[in-house]
Amino acid sequence: MNYRLTNEQEAFIAGVRDLMSQEDWECYFSTCDDNNEYPERFVRELAKLGLDSLLLPEEYGGSDAGLVTLALIWEELGRLGAPTYVLYQMAGFPTILQEGTQEQIDKIMAYIGTGKQVWNSAVTEPDAGSDVRSLQTTYTRKKGKVYLNGTKCYITSAAETPYLVVMAKDSASFEPIFSEFFVDMSKPGISVSHLPKLGLKMDSCCVVEFDNVELEEKDFFGTEGNGFARVKKEFDLERFLIACSNYGCAYCAFEDAARYANKRVQFDLPIAKTQLIQEKFAYMSVQLTNMKNMIYHTAWKADNGQMTPGDAAKCKLYCSKAAFDVVDNAMQVFGGQGITGEHRISRFWRDLRVDRVSGGSEEMQVLTLGREVLREYV
Amino acid sequence: MNYRLTNEQEAFIAGVRDLMSQEDWECYFSTCDDNNEYPERFVRELAKLGLDSLLLPEEYGGSDAGLVTLALIWEELGRLGAPTYVLYQMAGFPTILQEGTQEQIDKIMAYIGTGKQVWNSAVTEPDAGSDVRSLQTTYTRKKGKVYLNGTKCYITSAAETPYLVVMAKDSASFEPIFSEFFVDMSKPGISVSHLPKLGLKMDSCCVVEFDNVELEEKDFFGTEGNGFARVKKEFDLERFLIACSNYGCAYCAFEDAARYANKRVQFDLPIAKTQLIQEKFAYMSVQLTNMKNMIYHTAWKADNGQMTPGDAAKCKLYCSKAAFDVVDNAMQVFGGQGITGEHRISRFWRDLRVDRVSGGSEEMQVLTLGREVLREYV
Amino acid sequence: MNYRLTNEQEAFIAGVRDLMSQEDWECYFSTCDDNNEYPERFVRELAKLGLDSLLLPEEYGGSDAGLVTLALIWEELGRLGAPTYVLYQMAGFPTILQEGTQEQIDKIMAYIGTGKQVWNSAVTEPDAGSDVRSLQTTYTRKKGKVYLNGTKCYITSAAETPYLVVMAKDSASFEPIFSEFFVDMSKPGISVSHLPKLGLKMDSCCVVEFDNVELEEKDFFGTEGNGFARVKKEFDLERFLIACSNYGCAYCAFEDAARYANKRVQFDLPIAKTQLIQEKFAYMSVQLTNMKNMIYHTAWKADNGQMTPGDAAKCKLYCSKAAFDVVDNAMQVFGGQGITGEHRISRFWRDLRVDRVSGGSEEMQVLTLGREVLREYV
Amino acid sequence: MNYRLTNEQEAFIAGVRDLMSQEDWECYFSTCDDNNEYPERFVRELAKLGLDSLLLPEEYGGSDAGLVTLALIWEELGRLGAPTYVLYQMAGFPTILQEGTQEQIDKIMAYIGTGKQVWNSAVTEPDAGSDVRSLQTTYTRKKGKVYLNGTKCYITSAAETPYLVVMAKDSASFEPIFSEFFVDMSKPGISVSHLPKLGLKMDSCCVVEFDNVELEEKDFFGTEGNGFARVKKEFDLERFLIACSNYGCAYCAFEDAARYANKRVQFDLPIAKTQLIQEKFAYMSVQLTNMKNMIYHTAWKADNGQMTPGDAAKCKLYCSKAAFDVVDNAMQVFGGQGITGEHRISRFWRDLRVDRVSGGSEEMQVLTLGREVLREYV
Repeated sequence: MNYRLTNEQEAFIAGVRDLMSQEDWECYFSTCDDNNEYPERFVRELAKLGLDSLLLPEEYGGSDAGLVTLALIWEELGRLGAPTYVLYQMAGFPTILQEGTQEQIDKIMAYIGTGKQVWNSAVTEPDAGSDVRSLQTTYTRKKGKVYLNGTKCYITSAAETPYLVVMAKDSASFEPIFSEFFVDMSKPGISVSHLPKLGLKMDSCCVVEFDNVELEEKDFFGTEGNGFARVKKEFDLERFLIACSNYGCAYCAFEDAARYANKRVQFDLPIAKTQLIQEKFAYMSVQLTNMKNMIYHTAWKADNGQMTPGDAAKCKLYCSKAAFDVVDNAMQVFGGQGITGEHRISRFWRDLRVDRVSGGSEEMQVLTLGREVLREYV
Repeated sequence: MNYRLTNEQEAFIAGVRDLMSQEDWECYFSTCDDNNEYPERFVRELAKLGLDSLLLPEEYGGSDAGLVTLALIWEELGRLGAPTYVLYQMAGFPTILQEGTQEQIDKIMAYIGTGKQVWNSAVTEPDAGSDVRSLQTTYTRKKGKVYLNGTKCYITSAAETPYLVVMAKDSASFEPIFSEFFVDMSKPGISVSHLPKLGLKMDSCCVVEFDNVELEEKDFFGTEGNGFARVKKEFDLERFLIACSNYGCAYCAFEDAARYANKRVQFDLPIAKTQLIQEKFAYMSVQLTNMKNMIYHTAWKADNGQMTPGDAAKCKLYCSKAAFDVVDNAMQVFGGQGITGEHRISRFWRDLRVDRVSGGSEEMQVLTLGREVLREYV
Repeated sequence: MNYRLTNEQEAFIAGVRDLMSQEDWECYFSTCDDNNEYPERFVRELAKLGLDSLLLPEEYGGSDAGLVTLALIWEELGRLGAPTYVLYQMAGFPTILQEGTQEQIDKIMAYIGTGKQVWNSAVTEPDAGSDVRSLQTTYTRKKGKVYLNGTKCYITSAAETPYLVVMAKDSASFEPIFSEFFVDMSKPGISVSHLPKLGLKMDSCCVVEFDNVELEEKDFFGTEGNGFARVKKEFDLERFLIACSNYGCAYCAFEDAARYANKRVQFDLPIAKTQLIQEKFAYMSVQLTNMKNMIYHTAWKADNGQMTPGDAAKCKLYCSKAAFDVVDNAMQVFGGQGITGEHRISRFWRDLRVDRVSGGSEEMQVLTLGREVLREYV
Repeated sequence: MNYRLTNEQEAFIAGVRDLMSQEDWECYFSTCDDNNEYPERFVRELAKLGLDSLLLPEEYGGSDAGLVTLALIWEELGRLGAPTYVLYQMAGFPTILQEGTQEQIDKIMAYIGTGKQVWNSAVTEPDAGSDVRSLQTTYTRKKGKVYLNGTKCYITSAAETPYLVVMAKDSASFEPIFSEFFVDMSKPGISVSHLPKLGLKMDSCCVVEFDNVELEEKDFFGTEGNGFARVKKEFDLERFLIACSNYGCAYCAFEDAARYANKRVQFDLPIAKTQLIQEKFAYMSVQLTNMKNMIYHTAWKADNGQMTPGDAAKCKLYCSKAAFDVVDNAMQVFGGQGITGEHRISRFWRDLRVDRVSGGSEEMQVLTLGREVLREYV
């Protein structure tokens, strides 16, 4: 075993640290959050550092770097207060290369380097949450065209992405056939409405309605009938990314709180000198260590083709709750300053609550993981 | 032992239930919360039922009902979605009668029945949170007048109350002498500024600055030098009231979630039929029962002159966290609907987080309670 | 509401306190525990105080006192270190009166006042634990006799009781018919073997085998076919009693630890003066309060015919775990002295672990309670 | 980063697995535990595999393998049910080489390969637990000799080790000078008495009294006055080893329970098919993963000279509690079979409780860790 970083990884981290020190980004993030606005300028700066093509192969100008490297970069970004949750689409670019037609690939790749939101996939529906197989959106072939009908909800980023990969059921088949479509969001028949959200406000969350949207056969995304197999892999990656994002956020809150505890004087002593505060930091430190170790080990497994659905579920289950706990404790350290005013701790706190539901609820992670580990001992 | 309610108590509860069914109050509360607005119209309706004079003696038109009755009413209000945290001043009216001069009493009593915010007390300062004795606000006698100087923060309701009872230190004494003043907020030299808040938004939270505010000797509130003894009793009552308020809120969230769980179908079954959801409700039910029992027993002790600071600390410590946990679990039951849209669950969730800090942090309750119980075994 | 005790209740408590102060009972209990021996001499002393007929009607020489009074007595016994778990059979005497034939009643009542173990009921089998309906013990009618065959396990007290009420299935019926028998344990064909146990060692735990045990029609206990309805009520009472017993044990551990914390000096201070220890006592105190309140409220409901299966499950679920936590924390306060030597804290700790399984596992309580509360909101 | 094992590490693990499969060791361990007996035969087999010289340099016939390798071996031993807690002295052999005189080294090294208990160090006293500096054992020089007086308690292994390294205070100095002595336990004036223990019964726990024990100047262990610096490093190593041992034990319990859950049928289904059981395994799996990751990362830091006292405290704090929780949950899965009979789960459960106190209480780990992390942000 060896826990050393490569020079390339160290360089990426240094680049991130340098970018974050160039301005008071917190001011920018806070404004974006208040306005429910995607921090495009920030993401463009990351793109300049090559972060949006981190996972792409070299022929697409990427660095083919793998998830360990991604995790290192997100850790540092998060630690310095950046909302890495707005970056999920980046990790999905390889999916486009694997599944997309050349036309689809070209459309997406045109956005590399821009910092703009380009795509996301849309599966969830009002009556199909954890139970994705009960979805009601259909596609129907008619005179050489394909028509899409149905309603998707809780679709992240959909207010701004020009493309959406949409899961639907073949209306002509009794046996359920689930396929995906690469949908140009400017087509007629598509309406998008915003949902207000408790947290993660720099990324939109939408209801998207498809009313007889006319598509072509070439608009299938991946193989017809392969929809679920495709998104299952995506779900695993998404769960891992949520864990990375949560961990970085918790790390930031922890450091903010540690600095504050050393400065805040009550009863003639910095509160950092009291046992109850020391105890909080001891347990926060345990949780941060566990998150970090879990994330890197899982990333390494993923990079070596060994990450299971249970691994991804475990990352999301543990990190989303542990990160929330760390932030909740950090907030308690701040006392009145954490619950009033404009401290970023309260944004983190709201953000992390959302992630215990989105990307698969805690309950679904519990079942995925529990069943996987029990199967090994049948 | 006997857990039966009196007819009078049953009647009060019926009155509350009736009021709450007369309109869609949630719509009103939600608007007030969005606008950081005190729900004066609602409180006026409660006043019509006599709830603002519940604890007052009969000669002041009150029902002299005691805290058990108050707890019953707040439980029902909270359960039906009302923000009882806006009612704290009511429980403090007896304090005015005990400590105030006739002039002060008259000023406050004039507001009975109006539903308006009238008064609160102001102790906390930027550098005097848990450590209240380190406060820096002073009063200085000069030519028959008394001048008040200093800054109070996190002062609830202060944006609207015409009067504030302010704690200050005698600037002329080396030994600290703490006294309180009954301050008319329209006096020159007082500036009030709003603090944004994570929750409890229907009541204001302010920084109040006193710049050489001129008072008279008659403006002392209670006996000079008795400030701490007075507020310590107030703190105990406040902690008990926060517990009542938290419990009611949790009860409402629990019932909302139970109804939802019975209706929400996933995998062809109401989620209420799954073990993981049943488990959540089992533990929520345990916590609600514990809160309820603790509140009524403590109320009964208070009504019989037996409530200790440890009892009050215990109520706040347990109920603020248990209520938060119940609401957090209820939110998880709602899935996507709890973290997006306008469901009241997310308001409750923010509200309850604030109460784990305000009115004395969890840490202070731990120490107050822990020390009290250990002292019994020296 | 009214939390005052009656004079009769106060007198019972004083009697218990007096008995407990008459000798060093801990020495006796510790020896009984080491030797897996029922503390008969102690129970006989309790019987002299009338505690074994506490719940019996006056015509049987009882005081018809109800569960609130029983809970008060058990609380005081437990607090002073007595193993109330050896007293469960006493609470079941009314069952004998309700269900038994005169002959059966006479046999049991003959033991009142002796302190001896008389009876218990036997339901559980190796493959019928939580799933009691899958039991395999049968009864078969043949030539005017009834023959009992099968194996019961985890049967408490069975090593010493002269009588056992045994649940069995009618071998002649396709539809399952469950009935109970009042079995004289001296009959041929019965073999009893001891199971070693982690805790609760003053009461035996046995495997009981019935090999063609010949019974008469008069040996039915209660109505044929009514077995499950009968034991369901017994289970609820048993769960309540376990809660009472657990609570008393935790109370004792808490007081032992509090005295120790005030005396044990490290770093020149009693450890009771440190925040981490104060925190432990704050939370122990919260849990003791919750247990106490829950037990008395439930007892009152039971005495008024209102206790539901969910109430009983709630008591067992909460109290068995909370009591365990209190004792675990108390043990931690004792440091090395808690895990070595002969301190009673380690006996309590083992005892309480057993109760999280016996009398219905935590998991069964969770489901019973969760389902009951959800049903109210369908 | 790279999580692959070396061929040498794989070979060690294979050797362990092979040894463990050669007989029913559980039967042997269970007997040793019942008899409070050191499993010498088992340890001798490990010694044959070279495990007792794992950390020794090659000139002493060791494999100079480092803590990562040790952790791997202990994980596999623990997983297969072996009590690695009886092996702590092995990890201390390098200490002897660093600190000991040639004579002392020779005495200890003579035992390599025998499986016998050889040495331990003795610091704790009745009034010096967490507060080690308050110890009262003294050494006094007189006519060229050194006399040792005092009482040590909770001294592990001391019933059998021929040598003990004993910490004492120079009786001649006002400023406290703490030194250690290499004591031959056969000397006159030494008395050893056993303490009964809740768990870890295969290793003795003793009170050791020194009544004017005559030593020579050559019996100092390490430099005079350097006692605390020496044991502080030993404490860090000990805490790490406890974590390794706890983790292995939890792993074993988890696998036992998983196999049982797949076989145990209730309500016509293996209990592994129910959500509440799946949930237990999900969280057990999370805790095992966290322990494993923490242990290997810390071992790697130690092997690279980077392990801090906070790291060691974190390992012990987290692993001792997480392992206990895993075993407690596994026990719950076993139901009645876990709390009765002779299942090893109940031995594990008792063993792990002891480790939350011994080697430094949870509370001391909290403070060591909390203070270290806060110091980084001053």
